[in-house]
Amino acid sequence: MKEKLEQLEKLLHEIHDLSAANAVLEWDQQVNMPRGAAEDRGEQMATLSRIAHIKSTSDELGKLLDDLTKEAASLAKDSDEARLIKVAKRRYDKDTKVSGDWVAEFTKATAVAQSTWEEAKVNDDFELFRPHLEKLVGLRQEYAEFFKPYDHVYDPLLDDFEPGMKTAEVQKIFADMKDEQVELIHQISQQPEIDNSFLFLKYDADGQIEFGKKVITDFGYDWNHGRQDISVHPFTTSFGLNDVRITTKIVPDFLSPCLFGTFHECGHALYEQGIAKKFNRTPIADGASMAIHESQSRMWENLIGRSEPFWKRYYKDLQKIFPSQLGNIDGSTFYKGINKVEPSLIRIEADEATYNLHIMLRLEMEIGLMEGSIQAKDAAQVWKEKFNAYLGIVPPNDRQGVLQDVHWSSGLFGYFPTYALGNLVSVQLWDRMLQDNPDTAEQVEAGEFSKILGWYREHVHQYGAKYEPQELVQKITGEKINSAPFTRYLKDKFGKIYNL
Amino acid sequence: MKEKLEQLEKLLHEIHDLSAANAVLEWDQQVNMPRGAAEDRGEQMATLSRIAHIKSTSDELGKLLDDLTKEAASLAKDSDEARLIKVAKRRYDKDTKVSGDWVAEFTKATAVAQSTWEEAKVNDDFELFRPHLEKLVGLRQEYAEFFKPYDHVYDPLLDDFEPGMKTAEVQKIFADMKDEQVELIHQISQQPEIDNSFLFLKYDADGQIEFGKKVITDFGYDWNHGRQDISVHPFTTSFGLNDVRITTKIVPDFLSPCLFGTFHECGHALYEQGIAKKFNRTPIADGASMAIHESQSRMWENLIGRSEPFWKRYYKDLQKIFPSQLGNIDGSTFYKGINKVEPSLIRIEADEATYNLHIMLRLEMEIGLMEGSIQAKDAAQVWKEKFNAYLGIVPPNDRQGVLQDVHWSSGLFGYFPTYALGNLVSVQLWDRMLQDNPDTAEQVEAGEFSKILGWYREHVHQYGAKYEPQELVQKITGEKINSAPFTRYLKDKFGKIYNL
Repeated sequence: MKEKLEQLEKLLHEIHDLSAANAVLEWDQQVNMPRGAAEDRGEQMATLSRIAHIKSTSDELGKLLDDLTKEAASLAKDSDEARLIKVAKRRYDKDTKVSGDWVAEFTKATAVAQSTWEEAKVNDDFELFRPHLEKLVGLRQEYAEFFKPYDHVYDPLLDDFEPGMKTAEVQKIFADMKDEQVELIHQISQQPEIDNSFLFLKYDADGQIEFGKKVITDFGYDWNHGRQDISVHPFTTSFGLNDVRITTKIVPDFLSPCLFGTFHECGHALYEQGIAKKFNRTPIADGASMAIHESQSRMWENLIGRSEPFWKRYYKDLQKIFPSQLGNIDGSTFYKGINKVEPSLIRIEADEATYNLHIMLRLEMEIGLMEGSIQAKDAAQVWKEKFNAYLGIVPPNDRQGVLQDVHWSSGLFGYFPTYALGNLVSVQLWDRMLQDNPDTAEQVEAGEFSKILGWYREHVHQYGAKYEPQELVQKITGEKINSAPFTRYLKDKFGKIYNL
Repeated sequence: MKEKLEQLEKLLHEIHDLSAANAVLEWDQQVNMPRGAAEDRGEQMATLSRIAHIKSTSDELGKLLDDLTKEAASLAKDSDEARLIKVAKRRYDKDTKVSGDWVAEFTKATAVAQSTWEEAKVNDDFELFRPHLEKLVGLRQEYAEFFKPYDHVYDPLLDDFEPGMKTAEVQKIFADMKDEQVELIHQISQQPEIDNSFLFLKYDADGQIEFGKKVITDFGYDWNHGRQDISVHPFTTSFGLNDVRITTKIVPDFLSPCLFGTFHECGHALYEQGIAKKFNRTPIADGASMAIHESQSRMWENLIGRSEPFWKRYYKDLQKIFPSQLGNIDGSTFYKGINKVEPSLIRIEADEATYNLHIMLRLEMEIGLMEGSIQAKDAAQVWKEKFNAYLGIVPPNDRQGVLQDVHWSSGLFGYFPTYALGNLVSVQLWDRMLQDNPDTAEQVEAGEFSKILGWYREHVHQYGAKYEPQELVQKITGEKINSAPFTRYLKDKFGKIYNL
């Protein structure tokens, strides 16, 4: 068995290296690549993907995993070896169930859909995008068929991002919080509006970056195993556990995107930098799920980065960098400004209190599209109706409505709920952390994050993808993913800010 | 045949993409990578190399090339198809002749030798490096055996860098120029020394880069298909013909390295950017040889970049960037300063007139080591004797003597002569260009390089590796590679500068 395990690791290392190489190519594409190289880069990435796919679905790997799965019965269920076999087998089974023809058609369809979506969005032309949405929904319905029997047609999609999680679970979680979130926003809307106009002044790029770098260095970002660059869309990527890079973007007349975006991406990066090195170059060297990943980015962005203790410590540093913009704004005004709640059209600009509503809307639509209870041709109209129901606004156009996100044009159905689940998990874990580390607020106010990071390293990061998300949350908190802590957190935080 | 050719291109594209991906990884390693990622990056690059090697030596490719080589008899000898088959077959034969065991041992030996050499160089300790030099010479002798029968044991090594070229040819070329070069340097040494102390002042990094960028933009470097970065050792790399990147290094108190290094790397890049796009992602999308490549870098660096007409145009721009350093230095003093001839210890710092002597010494030593007429244990002593004979200096230590270059520790024997051959070829091609473009000096003085670049594009660049180096030089100039034009050039240029 030892020999077979070594053989498995060898195959997994090779697959990992190919995908790490592809990640370097993609990072370079976003950060450095000259424009004229786009087509060649596409070919290079396609070649690496193709070779990696062949290796990920090889009979050699399948046979080895079958043998090892049998032999793993003798291993402790939670041993690293047993888990590695389980995670690798799960991936292999998923990869091999889907036909090559489907993958080829899907790849082609999304390439066309994405460029059409870009055009449709610019021109506010849903009809242009409509046939592609129909096509991709159809392809995703076919995709689900590969995984029959399932409880719900949406399950196989969700499972790609949240291993083991079911549609019914997510629906229940969202249903539990919906009324209270809507009610909270209604209450806030009755209160005087907060002024955050000082965030929309001219902020020098170097100053934005300097402040962000200082903060994430304090958070514990390891520059010896990472770096930060500028890109159009901020992202985190890793080429193994020893090279976890982040990017940020600068909006010259809006302070928030670089500020909170940097904390957010740093949160993702701290997760990957914290995975135990013994898992490097294996499928366990990854987040447990998108929601768990998002719980880490949201934690540093919101629970710390938009908290009062944090700004008690760091606001004077920010003022020093931007004296003309912030010199006359006191700390309390700043704190309220960055936490202003306001129903708005665009998900990625939404505040903590309204964010999940954007997601609930998308989940309902995705499930409807997959079930067939919503037709792709009606998506723009349904969007408007639901948006009004959730957020009290009717989007004036489709550009800021159904066409705003890239996900559907890339065939990514099942991804959206992970954003909201991440918010919920972030508070569940945070509450548990507070029990072990009751002085958290004082530490944050002192700019001292090592105990906080240490707790997450110990309870979350080190395991990587060893456990499934529900399993991990249960192991840490004693409960499965649920919305109660998050709803309490929102009511408490915004109750104070808005004097509710 | 058409079908087989398409199949061949498909296989070659795949191999190309893997090696292009590896080049991106290496570029990133030199330019961006955080230090802590070194080990993982090594694994990733090894994995890509291994997969590329398997594909480059596959029976499938071999069978296809055998079939196509037979069928190519019906093609015009110089057609792109016939040449592609020939170049690919040549590579395949070389790759498959060498045993896998040898490659593995060589890879291991060079890895150890390189880190030992670094230590030996720092500590000026030849004895530390000596066993590794012995080992690598032995391995290279074994390597030559794979290519028996040969005329000379050094032929297979030379052939890796100069396809088709023989040791006897290079020896003859070098012998032809040796006496005249040595005599020229002797004459110069009798003349008053030139003052170039103004080159060794503090030069701001931004200014150095700004000037270099301006000049290479004028040369015709295509920023839409390339970029420039900073690295410890300057280099040019390409990820296909549409992404040809250069790097430079800054020495804060010496102007020359960034200045002439930038022109030099730009010359390499212009070559690759000029290869016909129809060859992209094939083995023809490469320089014809290292010497031809070096002829292009040396041309822009020396024949243009160290010429009087060039500085008549650009010196005022450089003065404007560095007024306190150069404001009181007139153009003629500057021109002489950058062309100062002085026998010195270090090859990479050598001037145009002494450079080739550094190479002749190395070639004699490499041939001696391979033949066995020089023993590795005596290398340090032999170096000193030969250095004195060629350049009239006895190196005071081995750090600045036999240990100065990285090449031997990497097992690169056969590479050095290409530097000198590149110098010779640069003047051979230049002289031919002057016949077609007699106003070259006026164009350079006007900062107008399009006709010059156009000539090289038409006669050299577009063909890539379609022709072997001797074949290409003969096709363009009517002669094989020889030293007469270069020797004339040196005598003429330095005769004027030193009033000989």
